[in-house]
Amino acid sequence: MKKLVNDRMNPWPCIKGKDIPATIDLDPVIYNYAPTCAMVLDIGCACGKVSIPLSKHGYSVTGIDINTDVLELAKDSSGPDWSPSPSFLKGNATALPFPDETFDLTVMQAFLTTVVSKEERDRIIREACRVLKPQSCLYIADFGQTWHSKIYRERYINDLPVTKEEGSFLACDEKTGECDYVAHHFTEKELVFLLIENGFEVVFFKRDTFVTRTGNRVNGFVVVGRKS
Amino acid sequence: MKKLVNDRMNPWPCIKGKDIPATIDLDPVIYNYAPTCAMVLDIGCACGKVSIPLSKHGYSVTGIDINTDVLELAKDSSGPDWSPSPSFLKGNATALPFPDETFDLTVMQAFLTTVVSKEERDRIIREACRVLKPQSCLYIADFGQTWHSKIYRERYINDLPVTKEEGSFLACDEKTGECDYVAHHFTEKELVFLLIENGFEVVFFKRDTFVTRTGNRVNGFVVVGRKS
Repeated sequence: MKKLVNDRMNPWPCIKGKDIPATIDLDPVIYNYAPTCAMVLDIGCACGKVSIPLSKHGYSVTGIDINTDVLELAKDSSGPDWSPSPSFLKGNATALPFPDETFDLTVMQAFLTTVVSKEERDRIIREACRVLKPQSCLYIADFGQTWHSKIYRERYINDLPVTKEEGSFLACDEKTGECDYVAHHFTEKELVFLLIENGFEVVFFKRDTFVTRTGNRVNGFVVVGRKS
Repeated sequence: MKKLVNDRMNPWPCIKGKDIPATIDLDPVIYNYAPTCAMVLDIGCACGKVSIPLSKHGYSVTGIDINTDVLELAKDSSGPDWSPSPSFLKGNATALPFPDETFDLTVMQAFLTTVVSKEERDRIIREACRVLKPQSCLYIADFGQTWHSKIYRERYINDLPVTKEEGSFLACDEKTGECDYVAHHFTEKELVFLLIENGFEVVFFKRDTFVTRTGNRVNGFVVVGRKS
Protein backbone atom coordinates (compact mmCIF):
# COMPACT_ATOMS: atom_id res chain seq x y z
CA MET A 1 0.00 0.00 0.00
CA LYS A 2 1.29 3.45 -0.87
CA LYS A 3 2.02 5.81 1.99
CA LEU A 4 1.65 9.54 2.19
CA VAL A 5 4.87 11.38 3.05
CA ASN A 6 4.33 14.42 5.27
CA ASP A 7 1.00 16.07 4.73
CA ARG A 8 0.21 15.16 1.13
CA MET A 9 -3.54 15.53 1.74
CA ASN A 10 -2.97 19.28 1.58
CA PRO A 11 0.45 20.20 0.19
CA TRP A 12 -0.93 23.21 -1.68
CA PRO A 13 0.33 26.08 0.49
CA CYS A 14 3.96 24.91 0.09
CA ILE A 15 4.20 23.30 -3.36
CA LYS A 16 6.32 25.15 -5.94
CA GLY A 17 4.16 27.41 -8.14
CA LYS A 18 5.46 25.91 -11.39
CA ASP A 19 4.41 22.42 -10.22
CA ILE A 20 0.74 23.35 -9.80
CA PRO A 21 -1.21 21.88 -12.75
CA ALA A 22 -3.61 24.08 -14.72
CA THR A 23 -4.90 21.92 -17.50
CA ILE A 24 -8.60 22.46 -18.22
CA ASP A 25 -9.55 25.14 -20.74
CA LEU A 26 -12.26 27.67 -19.97
CA ASP A 27 -15.66 26.79 -21.45
CA PRO A 28 -17.15 29.79 -23.28
CA VAL A 29 -20.54 29.03 -21.70
CA ILE A 30 -19.21 31.01 -18.72
CA TYR A 31 -19.88 34.26 -20.59
CA ASN A 32 -23.62 33.51 -20.57
CA TYR A 33 -23.70 33.66 -16.80
CA ALA A 34 -22.13 37.03 -16.00
CA PRO A 35 -23.07 40.55 -17.07
CA THR A 36 -20.61 42.86 -18.87
CA CYS A 37 -18.11 44.41 -16.45
CA ALA A 38 -18.97 41.77 -13.85
CA MET A 39 -17.02 41.46 -10.61
CA VAL A 40 -15.52 37.96 -10.82
CA LEU A 41 -13.77 35.88 -8.16
CA ASP A 42 -11.50 33.06 -9.41
CA ILE A 43 -11.09 30.69 -6.45
CA GLY A 44 -7.90 28.61 -6.53
CA CYS A 45 -6.61 30.72 -9.40
CA ALA A 46 -3.09 29.18 -9.52
CA CYS A 47 -1.02 30.84 -12.28
CA GLY A 48 -3.98 32.84 -13.61
CA LYS A 49 -4.86 30.63 -16.58
CA VAL A 50 -8.53 31.53 -16.10
CA SER A 51 -8.27 34.91 -14.34
CA ILE A 52 -6.23 36.50 -17.13
CA PRO A 53 -8.58 35.72 -20.08
CA LEU A 54 -11.61 36.67 -17.95
CA SER A 55 -9.92 39.99 -17.23
CA LYS A 56 -9.13 40.55 -20.92
CA HIS A 57 -12.83 39.86 -21.62
CA GLY A 58 -13.64 42.98 -19.62
CA TYR A 59 -14.50 41.52 -16.23
CA SER A 60 -13.07 42.95 -13.04
CA VAL A 61 -11.30 39.84 -11.78
CA THR A 62 -9.85 38.89 -8.43
CA GLY A 63 -7.82 35.69 -8.30
CA ILE A 64 -7.27 34.05 -4.93
CA ASP A 65 -4.98 31.18 -4.03
CA ILE A 66 -3.45 29.69 -0.89
CA ASN A 67 -0.03 29.38 -2.57
CA THR A 68 2.11 32.52 -2.49
CA ASP A 69 4.62 31.28 -5.03
CA VAL A 70 2.04 30.64 -7.77
CA LEU A 71 0.54 34.09 -7.24
CA GLU A 72 3.92 35.60 -8.22
CA LEU A 73 3.79 33.60 -11.46
CA ALA A 74 0.24 34.82 -12.04
CA LYS A 75 1.27 38.45 -11.56
CA ASP A 76 4.21 37.99 -13.94
CA SER A 77 1.87 36.53 -16.60
CA SER A 78 -0.66 39.34 -16.39
CA GLY A 79 1.05 41.67 -18.85
CA PRO A 80 2.05 45.32 -18.40
CA ASP A 81 0.51 47.38 -15.60
CA TRP A 82 -1.44 49.64 -17.97
CA SER A 83 -3.43 46.73 -19.48
CA PRO A 84 -6.52 45.32 -17.74
CA SER A 85 -5.29 42.61 -15.40
CA PRO A 86 -6.63 40.67 -12.44
CA SER A 87 -5.82 41.39 -8.82
CA PHE A 88 -4.15 38.40 -7.25
CA LEU A 89 -4.18 37.84 -3.52
CA LYS A 90 -3.48 35.13 -1.01
CA GLY A 91 -6.46 33.63 0.75
CA ASN A 92 -8.22 30.49 1.85
CA ALA A 93 -11.32 29.31 0.00
CA THR A 94 -12.90 28.12 3.25
CA ALA A 95 -12.85 31.68 4.67
CA LEU A 96 -12.91 34.22 1.86
CA PRO A 97 -11.70 37.71 2.83
CA PHE A 98 -14.69 39.47 1.22
CA PRO A 99 -18.03 40.81 2.48
CA ASP A 100 -21.31 39.06 1.60
CA GLU A 101 -22.76 39.69 -1.87
CA THR A 102 -19.61 41.18 -3.44
CA PHE A 103 -19.33 39.27 -6.75
CA ASP A 104 -21.39 38.66 -9.90
CA LEU A 105 -19.63 35.37 -10.66
CA THR A 106 -17.41 32.92 -8.80
CA VAL A 107 -15.23 30.43 -10.67
CA MET A 108 -13.61 27.12 -9.64
CA GLN A 109 -11.66 25.63 -12.50
CA ALA A 110 -10.02 22.29 -11.63
CA PHE A 111 -9.86 23.50 -8.05
CA LEU A 112 -12.28 21.21 -6.18
CA THR A 113 -10.31 18.17 -7.37
CA THR A 114 -7.57 19.27 -4.94
CA VAL A 115 -9.93 19.48 -1.95
CA VAL A 116 -10.00 15.94 -0.64
CA SER A 117 -12.48 16.29 2.22
CA LYS A 118 -16.21 16.44 1.63
CA GLU A 119 -16.71 18.70 4.66
CA GLU A 120 -14.17 21.17 3.33
CA ARG A 121 -15.77 21.13 -0.14
CA ASP A 122 -19.15 21.91 1.47
CA ARG A 123 -17.63 24.84 3.40
CA ILE A 124 -15.97 26.15 0.23
CA ILE A 125 -19.20 26.10 -1.78
CA ARG A 126 -21.08 27.86 1.03
CA GLU A 127 -18.38 30.55 1.06
CA ALA A 128 -18.59 30.96 -2.72
CA CYS A 129 -22.34 31.36 -2.24
CA ARG A 130 -22.00 33.91 0.56
CA VAL A 131 -19.82 36.30 -1.47
CA LEU A 132 -22.13 36.15 -4.53
CA LYS A 133 -24.82 38.74 -5.15
CA PRO A 134 -28.38 37.32 -5.15
CA GLN A 135 -29.20 35.22 -8.24
CA SER A 136 -25.55 35.23 -9.35
CA CYS A 137 -23.70 32.15 -10.51
CA LEU A 138 -20.87 29.79 -9.61
CA TYR A 139 -19.05 28.17 -12.56
CA ILE A 140 -17.28 24.87 -11.91
CA ALA A 141 -15.20 22.78 -14.30
CA ASP A 142 -13.71 19.65 -12.83
CA PHE A 143 -12.72 16.04 -13.34
CA GLY A 144 -15.22 13.16 -13.32
CA GLN A 145 -14.71 9.58 -12.17
CA THR A 146 -13.59 7.63 -15.21
CA TRP A 147 -14.35 3.99 -14.45
CA HIS A 148 -14.04 2.85 -18.06
CA SER A 149 -10.33 3.72 -17.93
CA LYS A 150 -8.33 0.81 -16.51
CA ILE A 151 -5.67 3.25 -15.25
CA TYR A 152 -8.09 5.33 -13.20
CA ARG A 153 -10.26 2.39 -12.12
CA GLU A 154 -7.18 0.79 -10.55
CA ARG A 155 -6.06 4.06 -8.96
CA TYR A 156 -9.45 4.64 -7.31
CA ILE A 157 -9.51 1.11 -5.93
CA ASN A 158 -5.85 0.67 -4.98
CA ASP A 159 -5.58 4.05 -3.25
CA LEU A 160 -8.92 3.81 -1.38
CA PRO A 161 -7.31 2.46 1.84
CA VAL A 162 -5.21 5.66 1.95
CA THR A 163 -7.64 8.23 0.57
CA LYS A 164 -10.74 6.82 2.33
CA GLU A 165 -12.93 8.33 -0.40
CA GLU A 166 -14.04 6.59 -3.60
CA GLY A 167 -12.83 8.47 -6.66
CA SER A 168 -9.75 9.89 -4.91
CA PHE A 169 -6.20 8.80 -5.72
CA LEU A 170 -2.56 9.64 -5.17
CA ALA A 171 -1.08 11.78 -7.95
CA CYS A 172 2.55 10.70 -8.05
CA ASP A 173 5.68 12.08 -9.65
CA GLU A 174 6.35 9.94 -12.71
CA LYS A 175 10.13 9.87 -12.08
CA THR A 176 10.42 9.45 -8.31
CA GLY A 177 7.07 7.69 -7.76
CA GLU A 178 6.59 9.91 -4.73
CA CYS A 179 3.10 11.23 -4.08
CA ASP A 180 2.79 14.91 -5.01
CA TYR A 181 -0.79 15.35 -3.83
CA VAL A 182 -4.14 13.59 -3.50
CA ALA A 183 -6.79 14.36 -6.12
CA HIS A 184 -10.50 13.65 -6.23
CA HIS A 185 -12.58 12.81 -9.31
CA PHE A 186 -16.31 13.47 -8.95
CA THR A 187 -19.48 11.59 -9.81
CA GLU A 188 -22.33 13.59 -11.32
CA LYS A 189 -24.33 12.93 -8.16
CA GLU A 190 -21.58 14.30 -5.90
CA LEU A 191 -21.21 17.54 -7.86
CA VAL A 192 -24.97 18.11 -8.10
CA PHE A 193 -25.52 17.57 -4.36
CA LEU A 194 -22.46 19.70 -3.50
CA LEU A 195 -24.29 22.57 -5.17
CA ILE A 196 -27.91 21.99 -4.15
CA GLU A 197 -27.03 21.28 -0.52
CA ASN A 198 -25.01 24.47 -0.24
CA GLY A 199 -27.20 27.23 -1.63
CA PHE A 200 -27.36 26.71 -5.41
CA GLU A 201 -29.68 25.36 -8.06
CA VAL A 202 -28.11 23.73 -11.12
CA VAL A 203 -28.76 25.83 -14.24
CA PHE A 204 -26.22 24.30 -16.63
CA PHE A 205 -24.65 20.85 -16.76
CA LYS A 206 -22.35 19.45 -19.42
CA ARG A 207 -20.37 16.23 -19.63
CA ASP A 208 -17.03 16.83 -21.32
CA THR A 209 -13.65 15.15 -21.77
CA PHE A 210 -10.55 16.73 -20.22
CA VAL A 211 -6.85 15.99 -20.53
CA THR A 212 -4.88 15.64 -17.28
CA ARG A 213 -1.38 16.99 -16.57
CA THR A 214 -0.02 13.56 -17.56
CA GLY A 215 -1.90 13.51 -20.87
CA ASN A 216 -4.68 11.07 -19.92
CA ARG A 217 -8.17 11.69 -21.30
CA VAL A 218 -10.73 11.60 -18.49
CA ASN A 219 -14.36 12.47 -17.94
CA GLY A 220 -15.06 16.06 -17.01
CA PHE A 221 -17.98 18.24 -16.02
CA VAL A 222 -18.82 21.88 -16.58
CA VAL A 223 -21.52 22.98 -14.14
CA VAL A 224 -23.13 26.32 -13.39
CA GLY A 225 -25.11 26.85 -10.18
CA ARG A 226 -27.29 29.88 -9.47
CA LYS A 227 -27.53 31.20 -5.91
CA SER A 228 -31.06 30.22 -4.86
CA MET B 1 -45.10 6.40 -1.14
CA LYS B 2 -46.05 4.90 -4.48
CA LYS B 3 -47.05 1.26 -4.53
CA LEU B 4 -46.51 -1.35 -7.18
CA VAL B 5 -49.68 -2.96 -8.50
CA ASN B 6 -49.27 -6.67 -9.27
CA ASP B 7 -45.79 -7.58 -10.36
CA ARG B 8 -44.55 -4.34 -11.88
CA MET B 9 -40.92 -5.30 -11.21
CA ASN B 10 -41.20 -7.59 -14.23
CA PRO B 11 -44.32 -6.92 -16.32
CA TRP B 12 -42.47 -7.58 -19.58
CA PRO B 13 -43.85 -11.01 -20.53
CA CYS B 14 -47.45 -9.68 -20.45
CA ILE B 15 -47.27 -6.01 -21.46
CA LYS B 16 -48.86 -5.12 -24.84
CA GLY B 17 -46.24 -5.11 -27.63
CA LYS B 18 -47.12 -1.59 -28.77
CA ASP B 19 -46.51 -0.27 -25.23
CA ILE B 20 -42.89 -1.44 -25.13
CA PRO B 21 -40.64 1.59 -25.62
CA ALA B 22 -37.84 1.47 -28.19
CA THR B 23 -36.29 4.89 -28.17
CA ILE B 24 -32.51 4.82 -28.50
CA ASP B 25 -31.00 4.91 -31.99
CA LEU B 26 -28.29 2.48 -33.00
CA ASP B 27 -24.78 3.94 -32.78
CA PRO B 28 -22.84 3.25 -36.00
CA VAL B 29 -19.79 2.32 -33.91
CA ILE B 30 -21.39 -1.13 -33.69
CA TYR B 31 -20.24 -1.88 -37.23
CA ASN B 32 -16.60 -1.66 -36.09
CA TYR B 33 -17.07 -4.62 -33.80
CA ALA B 34 -18.51 -7.31 -36.06
CA PRO B 35 -17.18 -8.87 -39.27
CA THR B 36 -19.20 -8.84 -42.51
CA CYS B 37 -21.92 -11.53 -42.50
CA ALA B 38 -21.63 -11.81 -38.72
CA MET B 39 -24.05 -13.91 -36.71
CA VAL B 40 -25.73 -11.36 -34.41
CA LEU B 41 -28.00 -11.86 -31.40
CA ASP B 42 -30.23 -8.93 -30.40
CA ILE B 43 -31.25 -9.58 -26.78
CA GLY B 44 -34.53 -7.93 -25.75
CA CYS B 45 -35.22 -7.07 -29.36
CA ALA B 46 -38.78 -5.75 -28.79
CA CYS B 47 -40.31 -4.61 -32.10
CA GLY B 48 -37.05 -5.11 -34.04
CA LYS B 49 -35.90 -1.49 -34.14
CA VAL B 50 -32.29 -2.71 -33.98
CA SER B 51 -32.58 -6.21 -35.44
CA ILE B 52 -34.06 -5.01 -38.72
CA PRO B 53 -31.38 -2.44 -39.68
CA LEU B 54 -28.64 -4.87 -38.59
CA SER B 55 -30.18 -7.46 -40.88
CA LYS B 56 -30.38 -5.01 -43.78
CA HIS B 57 -26.68 -4.27 -43.16
CA GLY B 58 -25.96 -7.89 -44.09
CA TYR B 59 -25.70 -9.53 -40.70
CA SER B 60 -27.49 -12.77 -39.96
CA VAL B 61 -29.64 -11.57 -37.06
CA THR B 62 -31.64 -13.37 -34.40
CA GLY B 63 -33.87 -11.22 -32.21
CA ILE B 64 -35.01 -12.67 -28.91
CA ASP B 65 -37.60 -11.29 -26.50
CA ILE B 66 -39.67 -12.59 -23.59
CA ASN B 67 -42.81 -10.88 -24.91
CA THR B 68 -44.74 -12.85 -27.56
CA ASP B 69 -46.92 -9.94 -28.62
CA VAL B 70 -44.01 -7.65 -29.52
CA LEU B 71 -42.39 -10.41 -31.57
CA GLU B 72 -45.47 -10.43 -33.81
CA LEU B 73 -45.00 -6.69 -34.36
CA ALA B 74 -41.31 -7.31 -35.14
CA LYS B 75 -42.16 -9.98 -37.72
CA ASP B 76 -44.75 -7.67 -39.32
CA SER B 77 -42.15 -4.88 -39.60
CA SER B 78 -39.50 -7.05 -41.21
CA GLY B 79 -40.68 -6.59 -44.79
CA PRO B 80 -41.42 -9.25 -47.41
CA ASP B 81 -40.19 -12.81 -46.94
CA TRP B 82 -37.76 -12.64 -49.87
CA SER B 83 -35.76 -9.74 -48.34
CA PRO B 84 -33.09 -10.34 -45.71
CA SER B 85 -34.84 -10.25 -42.36
CA PRO B 86 -34.08 -11.30 -38.79
CA SER B 87 -35.36 -14.44 -37.13
CA PHE B 88 -37.45 -13.55 -34.11
CA LEU B 89 -38.03 -15.98 -31.30
CA LYS B 90 -39.28 -16.05 -27.76
CA GLY B 91 -36.69 -16.60 -25.07
CA ASN B 92 -35.34 -15.49 -21.74
CA ALA B 93 -32.07 -13.55 -21.57
CA THR B 94 -31.09 -15.34 -18.35
CA ALA B 95 -31.10 -18.73 -20.13
CA LEU B 96 -30.46 -18.26 -23.84
CA PRO B 97 -31.55 -21.20 -26.03
CA PHE B 98 -28.25 -21.36 -27.94
CA PRO B 99 -25.04 -23.40 -27.65
CA ASP B 100 -21.79 -21.83 -26.41
CA GLU B 101 -19.82 -19.72 -28.91
CA THR B 102 -22.59 -19.31 -31.49
CA PHE B 103 -22.51 -15.56 -32.21
CA ASP B 104 -20.04 -12.92 -33.48
CA LEU B 105 -21.88 -10.07 -31.74
CA THR B 106 -24.52 -9.70 -29.04
CA VAL B 107 -26.56 -6.53 -28.68
CA MET B 108 -28.52 -5.03 -25.77
CA GLN B 109 -30.13 -1.77 -26.77
CA ALA B 110 -32.09 -0.12 -23.93
CA PHE B 111 -32.70 -3.60 -22.57
CA LEU B 112 -30.74 -3.69 -19.30
CA THR B 113 -32.71 -0.66 -18.06
CA THR B 114 -35.70 -3.01 -17.72
CA VAL B 115 -33.79 -5.56 -15.63
CA VAL B 116 -34.16 -4.24 -12.11
CA SER B 117 -32.12 -6.79 -10.17
CA LYS B 118 -28.33 -6.71 -10.12
CA GLU B 119 -28.13 -10.50 -9.79
CA GLU B 120 -30.29 -10.93 -12.89
CA ARG B 121 -28.20 -8.43 -14.85
CA ASP B 122 -25.06 -10.37 -13.90
CA ARG B 123 -26.64 -13.63 -15.11
CA ILE B 124 -27.72 -11.99 -18.36
CA ILE B 125 -24.24 -10.67 -19.14
CA ARG B 126 -22.68 -14.07 -18.38
CA GLU B 127 -25.18 -15.65 -20.79
CA ALA B 128 -24.38 -13.09 -23.49
CA CYS B 129 -20.72 -13.97 -22.94
CA ARG B 130 -21.32 -17.72 -23.10
CA VAL B 131 -23.00 -17.62 -26.53
CA LEU B 132 -20.27 -15.37 -28.04
CA LYS B 133 -17.36 -16.79 -29.99
CA PRO B 134 -13.93 -16.12 -28.40
CA GLN B 135 -12.80 -12.45 -28.66
CA SER B 136 -16.24 -11.39 -29.94
CA CYS B 137 -18.11 -8.36 -28.63
CA LEU B 138 -21.19 -7.29 -26.70
CA TYR B 139 -22.65 -3.89 -27.64
CA ILE B 140 -24.70 -2.11 -24.98
CA ALA B 141 -26.55 1.19 -25.26
CA ASP B 142 -28.45 2.24 -22.17
CA PHE B 143 -29.58 5.06 -19.92
CA GLY B 144 -27.31 6.74 -17.37
CA GLN B 145 -28.23 8.25 -14.01
CA THR B 146 -29.02 11.89 -14.65
CA TRP B 147 -28.64 13.64 -11.31
CA HIS B 148 -28.48 17.12 -12.81
CA SER B 149 -32.11 16.72 -13.92
CA LYS B 150 -34.49 17.69 -11.11
CA ILE B 151 -37.14 15.33 -12.55
CA TYR B 152 -34.91 12.26 -12.43
CA ARG B 153 -33.13 13.21 -9.19
CA GLU B 154 -36.50 13.30 -7.45
CA ARG B 155 -37.62 10.04 -9.05
CA TYR B 156 -34.48 8.17 -7.94
CA ILE B 157 -34.87 9.46 -4.38
CA ASN B 158 -38.64 9.28 -3.98
CA ASP B 159 -38.94 5.79 -5.46
CA LEU B 160 -35.95 4.31 -3.59
CA PRO B 161 -38.10 2.89 -0.75
CA VAL B 162 -39.97 0.84 -3.39
CA THR B 163 -37.19 0.04 -5.86
CA LYS B 164 -34.48 -0.58 -3.20
CA GLU B 165 -31.82 0.33 -5.78
CA GLU B 166 -30.37 3.78 -6.35
CA GLY B 167 -30.99 4.96 -9.90
CA SER B 168 -34.18 2.93 -10.31
CA PHE B 169 -37.63 4.50 -10.53
CA LEU B 170 -41.27 3.80 -11.34
CA ALA B 171 -42.16 4.60 -14.95
CA CYS B 172 -45.79 5.63 -14.73
CA ASP B 173 -48.56 6.14 -17.27
CA GLU B 174 -48.88 9.91 -17.72
CA LYS B 175 -52.69 9.76 -17.80
CA THR B 176 -53.59 7.22 -15.11
CA GLY B 177 -50.49 7.71 -12.92
CA GLU B 178 -50.32 3.94 -12.60
CA CYS B 179 -46.89 2.33 -12.66
CA ASP B 180 -46.20 0.61 -15.99
CA TYR B 181 -42.82 -0.81 -15.05
CA VAL B 182 -39.68 -0.17 -13.02
CA ALA B 183 -36.62 1.12 -14.89
CA HIS B 184 -32.98 1.42 -13.88
CA HIS B 185 -30.54 4.13 -14.92
CA PHE B 186 -26.86 3.19 -14.65
CA THR B 187 -23.74 4.84 -13.30
CA GLU B 188 -20.59 4.47 -15.37
CA LYS B 189 -19.11 2.38 -12.54
CA GLU B 190 -22.08 -0.02 -12.55
CA LEU B 191 -21.93 -0.63 -16.28
CA VAL B 192 -18.15 -1.09 -16.31
CA PHE B 193 -18.19 -3.60 -13.44
CA LEU B 194 -21.19 -5.40 -14.94
CA LEU B 195 -18.94 -6.15 -17.90
CA ILE B 196 -15.57 -6.79 -16.28
CA GLU B 197 -17.02 -9.02 -13.55
CA ASN B 198 -18.85 -11.18 -16.08
CA GLY B 199 -16.28 -12.07 -18.72
CA PHE B 200 -15.60 -8.89 -20.71
CA GLU B 201 -13.01 -6.17 -21.06
CA VAL B 202 -14.22 -2.69 -22.02
CA VAL B 203 -12.98 -1.77 -25.51
CA PHE B 204 -15.24 1.21 -26.28
CA PHE B 205 -17.00 3.66 -23.98
CA LYS B 206 -18.95 6.75 -24.96
CA ARG B 207 -21.10 9.14 -22.96
CA ASP B 208 -24.10 10.24 -24.99
CA THR B 209 -27.49 11.91 -24.51
CA PHE B 210 -30.67 9.92 -25.17
CA VAL B 211 -34.32 10.89 -25.36
CA THR B 212 -36.78 8.80 -23.29
CA ARG B 213 -40.25 7.64 -24.37
CA THR B 214 -41.67 10.72 -22.63
CA GLY B 215 -39.33 13.11 -24.43
CA ASN B 216 -36.88 13.79 -21.56
CA ARG B 217 -33.19 14.18 -22.40
CA VAL B 218 -31.09 11.96 -20.16
CA ASN B 219 -27.52 10.73 -19.93
CA GLY B 220 -26.73 7.64 -21.94
CA PHE B 221 -23.85 5.26 -22.52
CA VAL B 222 -22.69 3.26 -25.51
CA VAL B 223 -20.33 0.52 -24.36
CA VAL B 224 -18.62 -2.34 -26.15
CA GLY B 225 -17.11 -5.23 -24.22
CA ARG B 226 -14.85 -7.91 -25.72
CA LYS B 227 -15.07 -11.47 -24.40
CA SER B 228 -11.82 -11.86 -22.47
